[in-house]
Amino acid sequence: MSVTFAQGFTAAGVVAGISSTAGKKDLALVVNDGPLKAAAGVFTTNRFCAAPVQWSREAVKDGRLDAVILNSGGANACTGVEGYEQSAKTARKVSELLGCPVDDVAVCSTGLIGELLPLSNVLAGAEAAFAALDDTVQAGEDASHAIMTTDTKPKTVTRLGSNGFRIGGMVKGSGMIAPQLATMLCVITTDAVVTPEQLRVALAAGVDTSFNRIDVDGCMSTNDTVLLLASGASGITPDADEFNAIVADCCAALARQIIGDGEGASHDIKITVEGATDEDAALACGRAVAASNLLKCAISGNDPNWGRIVSSLGTVPVGVAPYDPDQVTVDVNGVRVCDGGKPGRDRGEVDMTPREVDIVIGLNIGGATATVWTDDLTHEYVHINADYES
Amino acid sequence: MSVTFAQGFTAAGVVAGISSTAGKKDLALVVNDGPLKAAAGVFTTNRFCAAPVQWSREAVKDGRLDAVILNSGGANACTGVEGYEQSAKTARKVSELLGCPVDDVAVCSTGLIGELLPLSNVLAGAEAAFAALDDTVQAGEDASHAIMTTDTKPKTVTRLGSNGFRIGGMVKGSGMIAPQLATMLCVITTDAVVTPEQLRVALAAGVDTSFNRIDVDGCMSTNDTVLLLASGASGITPDADEFNAIVADCCAALARQIIGDGEGASHDIKITVEGATDEDAALACGRAVAASNLLKCAISGNDPNWGRIVSSLGTVPVGVAPYDPDQVTVDVNGVRVCDGGKPGRDRGEVDMTPREVDIVIGLNIGGATATVWTDDLTHEYVHINADYES
Repeated sequence: MSVTFAQGFTAAGVVAGISSTAGKKDLALVVNDGPLKAAAGVFTTNRFCAAPVQWSREAVKDGRLDAVILNSGGANACTGVEGYEQSAKTARKVSELLGCPVDDVAVCSTGLIGELLPLSNVLAGAEAAFAALDDTVQAGEDASHAIMTTDTKPKTVTRLGSNGFRIGGMVKGSGMIAPQLATMLCVITTDAVVTPEQLRVALAAGVDTSFNRIDVDGCMSTNDTVLLLASGASGITPDADEFNAIVADCCAALARQIIGDGEGASHDIKITVEGATDEDAALACGRAVAASNLLKCAISGNDPNWGRIVSSLGTVPVGVAPYDPDQVTVDVNGVRVCDGGKPGRDRGEVDMTPREVDIVIGLNIGGATATVWTDDLTHEYVHINADYES
Repeated sequence: MSVTFAQGFTAAGVVAGISSTAGKKDLALVVNDGPLKAAAGVFTTNRFCAAPVQWSREAVKDGRLDAVILNSGGANACTGVEGYEQSAKTARKVSELLGCPVDDVAVCSTGLIGELLPLSNVLAGAEAAFAALDDTVQAGEDASHAIMTTDTKPKTVTRLGSNGFRIGGMVKGSGMIAPQLATMLCVITTDAVVTPEQLRVALAAGVDTSFNRIDVDGCMSTNDTVLLLASGASGITPDADEFNAIVADCCAALARQIIGDGEGASHDIKITVEGATDEDAALACGRAVAASNLLKCAISGNDPNWGRIVSSLGTVPVGVAPYDPDQVTVDVNGVRVCDGGKPGRDRGEVDMTPREVDIVIGLNIGGATATVWTDDLTHEYVHINADYES
């Protein structure tokens, strides 16, 4: 269902010849038919941010977007003034087709850094996508396929509010995921009646506890973009708290799907840090463990190697996360393999057959908790990133 | 030659039955026969520091050491009070054999975290090593073999001062290398006449520009130890600046050998950041690039993927390293593949056949430079760390 689940939105996904994979859908268009055109966005903090990020950051600043055009097959990053002009021309093309202001069109790109896009293909693709716009399930699914790169499956979400408003979304992302946002493009749509300010608050909070807590490979992208668009087409005004909660839930569901489709991953690793002095401390510990290549390799070998967990935990400065190493516990899939900083139950007792590996670290100094997600590090990850060009 | 190159030192390396590899030398002893017994040490900053680190940090505090006993086959880390007692009993055994104070014996261990050592084997091994102590080339080489774990070759260094004093050393380290020290045990010996304070200054400076600038896998160890011992047996008082320079050179040579033997590595990657506002800024940029799994995979696939270099560079906060992305250049093996933040010469021009890959990043905002070293990320790294127990 994806972005067409909410009323007031049409979408399309077409083959534009941008991707090097012949016949792959590589251009998506999402249009907000209103009556509201409210929008909010969150973007990469990478200083080498791509041309489409520079363009879209400005476009969404006034809280209004009519449409988003997204392409796979090229990131249009580190492409200078010419790259920026490509994003501007792409937005202009869409604005002419829709009859809307050029600065109400967002542009998103994903793919190889450092190469310009085949602009004529993008512009012709925009026309084809415009012609194919529809509010059907299929149209939403076509769009979610068109943004995939090394993703092995499309990632979508739909949620229904208690008084009938709808939220739907799509995301792409598999590698270059971390630590603040991922190489991910995400569009979430809703037919609720909400203001741009409500969207900004809901999106910032939702992203903070989802996309900002996943880490496939520690690599931050130049192109990360998350957009939230509201059409108001349902005529329903949501309860603000419920709206925020559902947006956060959509972000979490999409982020979880990214981890489930991490490049080459054979295990999804959930790392929960409990008993911290505050949430930031718990988060810092979780991120440090999630970043350990040695742990990620051990998990891919089905080894619940807690020594690699505590050695990563030990790199977090005392000032960031106070704890006593002699009080720390580590449970892997329910087995307490480290107890009070020393060996606990035999790690041979841990069942490593499930895809999801559940690591719980107890700092035993306070009451705060945070969870981060990562993937294991496999031969296939190296293969994808050494032997393919991306 | 290793630690026996300097006069006044004896060493041994024996098979003690600690390692799970039958017949592997796994216990080394280095003895300072004086007349001086000056010493200095640098240790891991990991909060889960191992029992031998806790012991040795105290032992070296007074600037005097008579001996160092080192074992592979077990890290004795996260082993609680019982582990600390194992280190203490090991030191006591050596002190009884040598007739020196127990707190003038340092203990170093490397291997799997979270398991106690087979103490009777360690103590019997200490006796065997004591019996085998010699000042020969072979004795030094035996010691350098006994500390190896996943290392594929021993790593040693010798240097001669201009007025005849000598410095020699050995190190082990291959994985769990970064970002402040490595899983490394290092002993450097000199026959120069120097004070403990001179040793401390020389070692701190030497470590800072060598072991603290290599990163195999971003994983900091629980057991890192670098010791510098002076016997004064040459009777030669060195020029202080020359002494510091040679110690730094020894550290750099040993650190370079660790990178050359990084787990599974097929390329050694030298990352030089030039034109930074200050050395810390250059270092922060170099470390960020060295930590990129995506870049390390690309290099293992012989792809000089500069997009993965700048996207890592872009994660360094402006406050840490000011630069303008549009002024940045990247040279790989002498080819300027990125020029002013945009594509430069074709990356197909880069010769990726040499083992050493030379990456030079120009920030073009100041005059400071720093170099860090890392390895590429290969199938073999994953194999070693997923499929072996360590």
